Formats: sequence, structure tokens, C-alpha cells
Amino acid sequence: MERKDPEAVADAAAVAALLQIGAEIGADQVLDAGEPFSAADVAKAVDVPVAGITAYLGALLAAGLIADTEVPGTFQMAADYPDLRYQAGYVSWAMNANGPFLDNARAFLTDPAAAAQVHRRDGRRVAVSSRWIGERAFYPQLIEQVVAAGALRVSDLGAGAGGLLIKLLQEDPARTGTAVDSNGAACAAARQAALAGGVHDRLTVVERPIESLVDDPEPVAGADAVLASYVMHDIVADDRIALGVLGALRDALAPGGFLAVADAVSYARRPEERKFSALFTYLHATFMSVTLPTELEWLDKFAAAGFSQTKAVPIGLPGGRLFVATR
Amino acid sequence: MERKDPEAVADAAAVAALLQIGAEIGADQVLDAGEPFSAADVAKAVDVPVAGITAYLGALLAAGLIADTEVPGTFQMAADYPDLRYQAGYVSWAMNANGPFLDNARAFLTDPAAAAQVHRRDGRRVAVSSRWIGERAFYPQLIEQVVAAGALRVSDLGAGAGGLLIKLLQEDPARTGTAVDSNGAACAAARQAALAGGVHDRLTVVERPIESLVDDPEPVAGADAVLASYVMHDIVADDRIALGVLGALRDALAPGGFLAVADAVSYARRPEERKFSALFTYLHATFMSVTLPTELEWLDKFAAAGFSQTKAVPIGLPGGRLFVATR
Repeated sequence: MERKDPEAVADAAAVAALLQIGAEIGADQVLDAGEPFSAADVAKAVDVPVAGITAYLGALLAAGLIADTEVPGTFQMAADYPDLRYQAGYVSWAMNANGPFLDNARAFLTDPAAAAQVHRRDGRRVAVSSRWIGERAFYPQLIEQVVAAGALRVSDLGAGAGGLLIKLLQEDPARTGTAVDSNGAACAAARQAALAGGVHDRLTVVERPIESLVDDPEPVAGADAVLASYVMHDIVADDRIALGVLGALRDALAPGGFLAVADAVSYARRPEERKFSALFTYLHATFMSVTLPTELEWLDKFAAAGFSQTKAVPIGLPGGRLFVATR
Repeated sequence: MERKDPEAVADAAAVAALLQIGAEIGADQVLDAGEPFSAADVAKAVDVPVAGITAYLGALLAAGLIADTEVPGTFQMAADYPDLRYQAGYVSWAMNANGPFLDNARAFLTDPAAAAQVHRRDGRRVAVSSRWIGERAFYPQLIEQVVAAGALRVSDLGAGAGGLLIKLLQEDPARTGTAVDSNGAACAAARQAALAGGVHDRLTVVERPIESLVDDPEPVAGADAVLASYVMHDIVADDRIALGVLGALRDALAPGGFLAVADAVSYARRPEERKFSALFTYLHATFMSVTLPTELEWLDKFAAAGFSQTKAVPIGLPGGRLFVATR
């Protein structure tokens, strides 16, 4: 494995903690928007006293995460902010999103079922770190797949706040989208984001668990592309449910349509992915009772559900694969 | 700033989370000892069912943190384990040790004093990550300083579990040491470690706050070297207390003796240290009400306390300096 500069890791750890503070108070929405802002703007947007925001922005400025603009007292994100936020995503996911697991490791290693009843992750923190990673690690590949295929009817399963679909709708005015998510708050956020992004007339938001598509496939019926980012591993662990859900998706697709699943394989072995993949696989097994399939097992599941062919390509997220299964 | 490989950060984040789990259950003591071990050895040492330990060691093996030995079912730390643990220290300190600050950022930014009453860091988690960093980032420089000066009577302020002093006593059988720490559990750990390390007859452990040395300097009286790693910034923020404590230390030193302080400066600006230094400075100001001195302010404080000369050299920890103040 490539030797890492310790200071590079210290940098990433510091950026993660600083951005985590922003995400906790909601300031990430202002910072990430890409427009210039003042301390007063942020304080008003997140309802925190301006003194607290001024000190926080002072730290971001000293760290080089934001920069002064020509207007005194006004800042903008630094040029490498998106890169740094992507790297911070790994730190935030490993340490903050999974914090309740780490802090209660003894309970989980002693009695996983009992511990899982008591210690749960915060859905918002999981979503924040997943977005920081996903936007850079595999969204571009998913978008490229949809655009290259000329897919106009697109459904996203576990769509969260709808970021990926909104990008796709903005890319082509003839495209329509359906966002499926079981979380009511995520669905509300997706509706709001679609309105802000000017695509609300082409985005349908459906609050439902993915498993419900077996009995009522309407949200995916006739889709040219169905996307699913890091939500399928919860479903495919049970072979019977996997067959039902994947089969229903295959049957619902338009002729020539495809299912694109970005997801994790069990204990990937390449040197550059073995560490993060080990953590991801182990946390799911021990703390969430989810056994990840190997790459071959994933491919078998798509084949068993009737897909004519499936290709697997690596993504930026270590241990992740993009499976593109064709009807 | 040097561009970082995102996978390198993902690696470090994963290592940090995996080692944090070990530290939570106490398995780090077995792993870090450097001797071969089995799952049964670890399970017995930490009182966790062997099934949980077997799965955990499986993850460490897949991640390359431990390796098989010639004896089946027996493992040893990987060659780069100490390097990886050092890097993980930055992630662990930023995200886990400071977790209560990050998770309650809104409360701290709104009313720091009230939040500080409610949300406190876990002393053990702070100590673990500080040790992972310190052992590599500045212990070697402190040891070199003591050895080069031929200092035989050494006191360590905020000595924690005594690791640094024990190394120094093992280095020269003529050396004696005094560990000063206000934490009773740390003092007990230091006594135990001195016994295990065979230096208990030359190590005195004193459970006292550093400030108490003003009225009773006995634990530092006649010392050739007084060491203080990342404990002085809490003390020197108040100029009157700084003068009292530093002055008492200066007066207590043997002729030719020195005080070696490894500590942080406020908002260091070099590109390779600005990010971690920004986090360190900001967290202390906002979450711990501690204003760090600049490098010049540190030097002024040593001069005001009567030290004849003080040199400041960078250490591995970004934003850190080793101040060597001569009587």
C-alpha cells in the first residue's frame, strides 16, 4: 500500500470535524450553495448567534476551507472545498455516522441483537456523510450511464433528498423522475429541493419502502432506468426477498431498460480498497446484521431475477461496485 | 497544499474506526503489545465472547492491520501497524475524542458556558487518541532532548499512564522519574505500567494538579528536566497563573536544567499545518474556553517567568511546537 503523509490524514481529520460542525448547525446548506455569504447570512439561515458563526467562519478561513471575497466580511467556498468535503465524507461516515456503534462496541460484540435495539445511528448524520461521499464517488458514473443510454424515465430507489434525480432532470428537459424513499423527512426535502431546482413539475416523490414495489411496481413501471445507491444490500441479503424485488424491477423496466445498483461487496481484496471495505463489511455484519454479498453473489442474484446480462465496474468508493443489469 | 489521494483518507478513516473499536473493548492492550495472540487470548483479556473477537480479528486481518503467524489461529500486528495507528490518532482525536463537542455544536455555538456544563469529553477517549498521536509526533524529540542533555532526574507533568517516563527510565538505569497527574485512574495506570516495565523502584507517581506546584514544588525540585506535553495551554492562558507555575518550575530546576513543553500555538499558518491547527485552536476557544497563545506569546511567557533562553522547534503534530526553556 502507498505510504501516506501523516499530515495529509491530519488535514482530512480536521476538515471532517470542521465540516461536521457546519452540518450539525445546518450551515452546510449555505456553504455548499456556492454563493458568497457573510456571517450574518449564515447566522440568520441557521438561527445561531452571529458571534458563534463569526468564530466558526474564522476557523474555516484559517483552515483554507473558505476564502475572502472582494466584499469585506463576505466569503466564498475555497476552490478545493468539494474535493476536501469528499475526503471528509469517509472520515465522517466512519467516525460520526457510526459513532453509536463505536461508542458501544462492547455491547455489540457481547450481544449484537440487544445492543441494536438500544443504540441506533442518526439517520441525518448517515445521510450527510453518504452524500459527501456519493456525490463524488459514484454519482458521475450513474449520470453518465443514464445519459449515454438516453434514458428519459428514471426512478431512484432510496433517493433521499433527491439530489441525483434533480441533476438528471436538469440535464435533459425531456426527462421525468420518480424518487422512492421510505423516510418522510427525506421525501419532504426532495420535494423542496425539486422546487428550488425548478424541476418539481417533472419529479414525483413516493414515500414507500423499496420492498413494497413487489406488490405495487407503479413507481418503476415503464422506467428506462432504475437507480439504487447503497440501499440494495439491506434487501438482497435474504435470497427470497432479493428474488422478489429484483424480479419485480426487471419486469417493470421498459424494453431495453436497465437497473443500475451502486453498492458494496463483501471484503474486497485490492490493496487500495481492503481497509475501507473491511470496515464497511464488518460494521454491517456485526452492528447491523447485514451480510454483504461478494461480487459473484451479486451477479448471481441479478441473473436469478431474470436480467439478461449484468456488468460490474469499480467506483471511487473503496469496496464499491456499479452493477448495471440489463432487462 | 499537496493533493491527497481520496482512497488514502478512506484508508485512514477505516483504520481509525477499526482501532477505535479495539480501544473501546480494551483489545488495544493485547494488539499493541507486539506479541502473537489468538482470538481466545483477546477474548479472555477483555472479557468479550470469543465469537465477537473472532469476527473483529477477521476484519483486522482483511484490512491488513494484523497478519497470520506460522501458528494457525494466531496473529501478530502488521509491520505498518504503528504508522497506521499514528495516522488514526488524528482521526480519532478530531472525531471521537471531540465527539460530544461535534454532536452538540449548536448548543456550544449558542451558549458555550451552558453547553460546557452538560457535554463533556470522555477522558479515556481523549487519552487514547492523544497517545496514538504523541508517541510518534513528539515523544522521540522529547526523549532525544533528555538523553542529549544527560538529564537523570526527570519529572513529567500531566504524565497520564506514564509511557514517556517509563521509556526514559528504561533508557538509562541511573535515571529517576516523577509522574505528576491530577487524574487518579491515570496515576494508577502509571504505577501498574511501571511495575510491568520493571522501573517501579525509580518512578514516583504523584496525584496532583500542576497548579499545586506553585505552593509545593517538591515533585519537580532539583529536576534536570521537566516535561509537559499538551497540558500547559490550559494553564498559561491566564497570565498570572502562567507566571506563577512557569516561575515555580524555573526556580525548582537544577542548575543547567530545562523545561520542555510540547504544545500548540494559535492558528499556525504553514500550509501543511493550517487545517489541523485551525480545528485545534477553534475547538479549544469555542468548546473549552481556552485561548491558545501564538508562538511569540509562548516565548514571552517563558521569558517573563525568568528562563534565560527558550527555543521553539516544530514537531510532527501540525500546529505544535516543542519549547525548550533553559533555567
